[in-house]
Amino acid sequence: MITLVALYKRPSDDGDFEKHFLEIHVPLLRQFPGLRALHVVRVTGAPIGESKFSFLVEASFDTRAAMDAALASREGKAVARDLMAFAADLVTVFHGEPLA
Amino acid sequence: MITLVALYKRPSDDGDFEKHFLEIHVPLLRQFPGLRALHVVRVTGAPIGESKFSFLVEASFDTRAAMDAALASREGKAVARDLMAFAADLVTVFHGEPLA
Repeated sequence: MITLVALYKRPSDDGDFEKHFLEIHVPLLRQFPGLRALHVVRVTGAPIGESKFSFLVEASFDTRAAMDAALASREGKAVARDLMAFAADLVTVFHGEPLA
Repeated sequence: MITLVALYKRPSDDGDFEKHFLEIHVPLLRQFPGLRALHVVRVTGAPIGESKFSFLVEASFDTRAAMDAALASREGKAVARDLMAFAADLVTVFHGEPLA
């Protein structure tokens, strides 16, 4: 299993960031070929102080090859294009392996 | 459901960071009273460039009150003390609500 993680900072001007994320971007993520699970967390705060983040997304695939294929697919390119259009300066993307 | 998230940067000098995280800190996390699920992801890279992160942890509780009680408990204080001892300058902690 491999998990693709996207962590979004809170925009300085909310504008339609949240609406775009929830109504446009998340539905695009669900189109990833080979997607095994999609988890979306809305950040609500921090134990100490405030959090600079707004959303955390985890998209899981069976293998690294499946994730790479999803990213290279037509649907994956639509995800990347949308991400760059609405959150290029807010998002950090990485991947990792879930441990037992 | 509420999820407590800890995101760790990669230390500049690995030292025993990973060993301490896996062998000391994760077992402490499992002692959280009221813990419903614990997910640990080892960061393996990024789709573009490298990732500055090393691990992502998600600890889930039934309610905000259960999470607050866990953090205030003896076991929660042991987690916080250990975190500050081995990763104070590497970790970011926040919490959020999983969306459908």
